[in-house]
Amino acid sequence: MEYLEQSFSVKFDYKVFFTTSLFKPDNFTLANFILSVPAKIRRKILFVVDEGVAIAHPDLKASIKEYFKVYQEIQLVEDILIIPGGEAAKNNPELFEKLIAAVDTYGIDRHSYIAAIGGGAVLDLVGYAAAVSHRGVKHIRIPTTVLSQNDSGVGVKNGINFKGKKNFTGTFSPPAAVFNDAEFLLSLTDRDYYAGISEAVKVALIKDEAFFEWLEAHASSLAERNSKQMNVLIKRCAALHLAHISSADPFEMGSSRPLDFGHWAAHKIEQLSHFSILHGEAVAMGIALDSTYSYLIGLITEEKLQRILNVLQVFFELTHPLIQIQDLNAPVLKGLAEFQEHLGGELTITLLSDIGKGQEVHQIDSDLLIAASNYVMEFTRQPQSLSL
Amino acid sequence: MEYLEQSFSVKFDYKVFFTTSLFKPDNFTLANFILSVPAKIRRKILFVVDEGVAIAHPDLKASIKEYFKVYQEIQLVEDILIIPGGEAAKNNPELFEKLIAAVDTYGIDRHSYIAAIGGGAVLDLVGYAAAVSHRGVKHIRIPTTVLSQNDSGVGVKNGINFKGKKNFTGTFSPPAAVFNDAEFLLSLTDRDYYAGISEAVKVALIKDEAFFEWLEAHASSLAERNSKQMNVLIKRCAALHLAHISSADPFEMGSSRPLDFGHWAAHKIEQLSHFSILHGEAVAMGIALDSTYSYLIGLITEEKLQRILNVLQVFFELTHPLIQIQDLNAPVLKGLAEFQEHLGGELTITLLSDIGKGQEVHQIDSDLLIAASNYVMEFTRQPQSLSL
Ligand SMILES: NC(=O)c1ccc[n+]([C@@H]2O[C@H](COP(=O)([O-])OP(=O)(O)OC[C@H]3O[C@@H](n4cnc5c(N)ncnc54)[C@H](O)[C@@H]3O)[C@@H](O)[C@H]2O)c1
Ligand SMILES: NC(=O)c1ccc[n+]([C@@H]2O[C@H](COP(=O)([O-])OP(=O)(O)OC[C@H]3O[C@@H](n4cnc5c(N)ncnc54)[C@H](O)[C@@H]3O)[C@@H](O)[C@H]2O)c1
Ligand SMILES: [Zn+2]
Ligand SMILES: [Zn+2]
Repeated sequence: MEYLEQSFSVKFDYKVFFTTSLFKPDNFTLANFILSVPAKIRRKILFVVDEGVAIAHPDLKASIKEYFKVYQEIQLVEDILIIPGGEAAKNNPELFEKLIAAVDTYGIDRHSYIAAIGGGAVLDLVGYAAAVSHRGVKHIRIPTTVLSQNDSGVGVKNGINFKGKKNFTGTFSPPAAVFNDAEFLLSLTDRDYYAGISEAVKVALIKDEAFFEWLEAHASSLAERNSKQMNVLIKRCAALHLAHISSADPFEMGSSRPLDFGHWAAHKIEQLSHFSILHGEAVAMGIALDSTYSYLIGLITEEKLQRILNVLQVFFELTHPLIQIQDLNAPVLKGLAEFQEHLGGELTITLLSDIGKGQEVHQIDSDLLIAASNYVMEFTRQPQSLSL
Repeated sequence: MEYLEQSFSVKFDYKVFFTTSLFKPDNFTLANFILSVPAKIRRKILFVVDEGVAIAHPDLKASIKEYFKVYQEIQLVEDILIIPGGEAAKNNPELFEKLIAAVDTYGIDRHSYIAAIGGGAVLDLVGYAAAVSHRGVKHIRIPTTVLSQNDSGVGVKNGINFKGKKNFTGTFSPPAAVFNDAEFLLSLTDRDYYAGISEAVKVALIKDEAFFEWLEAHASSLAERNSKQMNVLIKRCAALHLAHISSADPFEMGSSRPLDFGHWAAHKIEQLSHFSILHGEAVAMGIALDSTYSYLIGLITEEKLQRILNVLQVFFELTHPLIQIQDLNAPVLKGLAEFQEHLGGELTITLLSDIGKGQEVHQIDSDLLIAASNYVMEFTRQPQSLSL
């Protein structure tokens, strides 16, 4: 058998900046980044803004324009595009087409930037459009939600939905840079603010016991939207995500996805609720279910389980008719098969073998899931634990 | 300025197999490849076939089905999809949608394969659809033209056109494997057969003097479609392409694209001719023009230039009203600006400093292009050189 063999590695790097007032003219962070390429390379940038952000920050467009007046070497595309925020961004294929057309209209080339300002959904859409335009235009992410600042916005994935199926098309493509501006978080609703906290609980549970203890200790001030503590949470959570991505299998060529702890149920609940349950809220429910399952099969103690459920309960409802598994026909159970289908290969689910330690299993017992679901329901009926 | 830094490398590897009668039941090449993954991974494969190939090989569908009856461990998707071949495949966005829908309909996951059998255009389309489905389904390429076996099919790029603009959307994504079956070439028209030879001349000129001399020596037998010599050409050309991709900048993050020698004009001519001039034919014209330009600015001798033009003339018309540059308004000149636009950064054009040696320049003198165009026209009016 005759063959030629090809083999190469591609290196990717990017920075995640933490700043405030990104577009204050004397904040050099963004401009310095763009100007760091050699002068012969064109510096051109197109902005796409989440409508929810644009409404909450009515001066944003003007600030962006003022900012780039100071940095004349950078060519700002005059039109700033506004697109619907939330899951609608990923459910409407016309928005994707619109962005591709914009790349053409505004002459965006492989060295120009498309910057997206918004929640995880808008970043996922714009990141995908940037990734496939000219086989990859440089993409800057400016996440504006807790979830996108500590998780989705710092990672390497993008995508949109297809007939309601989450992230059916997309790519792995690292951003050119990420700019986390804490001020954007001030305008979030409580629901959107809290929603991002579940990803921090998730990554703490599978990777970092000390961070989980920090979350226990600071749950009430986080619930009161203490900005200082939220900054700590975001930085720690983002760092854990970055470290995970670079340490393992950045483009997920294998079947293992520890960061998807709690997500097999979450993805299904989101879809079953027609996205009325937020991603982060669904993840909290998924974590509660899978942590309880971990306890029921003897991986963690009941005391540790209750610490987990207690922290989650500060921010979230842990149960919902859609996640209640009374029998083998419960619709959420379909999420297991779909999770396997999406990954291919054998079923691989992350559970907990301790607080701060994930463990993969390849089999899930549906009867025990029923028991886990009942446990969570029972737990949430009790008066809240006094430990917090 | 506070920031976190992310950095990682992703390794890619794949084999390019050379075989004949790929679907003869006792040819293990393809089956062995698919069965080489651990048994717990699902082995499922969907075939998409170029209509031109399906028509020229009416037994192909049946052969594929027979083949997989022998290899029961592999799950063949019963429906074999046929899509229009040639540039039409890349110009019709509905075909892309159709492929994404097929991934859904047939339950293709990230460990399943989508195999494409066809010319470069069909491979580019199917490769793109595979690359973005579930953020990357495994893609097998079975190229059926000279060009796709020696160039496009062995590389890492895919894409489709947008409003006639070549490769406007696409990705860099290496195939899982490539299977070059020499038998497919027998059914090509002479035009399609010859068209692929220009990429071999191109890569010889910028990389490998000995290969160019081999092409000179075997031009007439290649013109007579000698299969043995064609196999040598394809293997050598594919190897040079693979070596180039892995040695330099596989995902073309910089502005340099030596493999695009002759292509700034070629892409424009293709488009101006509404794709009635084939890619390979346009490349031959582009090589003639840029080699002559290299001579006019003193980079290569006239003797070497004429050797180049003589080889090309065996297979191609070297001039065409669309490429004749009489003045600065000649439409093909727009190709220079568009080439720069696509790459971004400064203009970077590969010329020749010798046979077998490319050299990048960052400026092109339009008046000298007029002279180069006139030289080629004059040359093609002469009786063919006797040296061949
Ligand atoms: N790519 C990844 O790796 C990854 C990881 C996790 C989640 N995700 C995706 O992220 C999405 C969820 O993102 P999200 O939680 O950031 O929510 P979101 O993007 O759905 O936004 C929620 C709402 O908040 C609004 N909004 C955003 N920022 C605001 C601000 N600063 N002030 C006021 N309103 C604001 C939006 O307009 C929207 O209405 C889901 O689609 C999920 O699948 C992607
Ligand atoms: N991805 C890359 O890196 C890359 C590189 C170079 C070129 N390309 C692209 O490749 C395309 C050109 O590909 P091509 O030259 O292979 O031609 P093609 O794909 O356009 O096919 C030409 C014609 O031949 C037919 N055909 C294909 N195989 C046949 C066979 N064995 N027998 C009979 N008919 C057959 C097709 O149906 C079509 O009508 C262009 O779109 C070009 O942009 C891509
Ligand atoms: Zn998540
Ligand atoms: Zn080419």
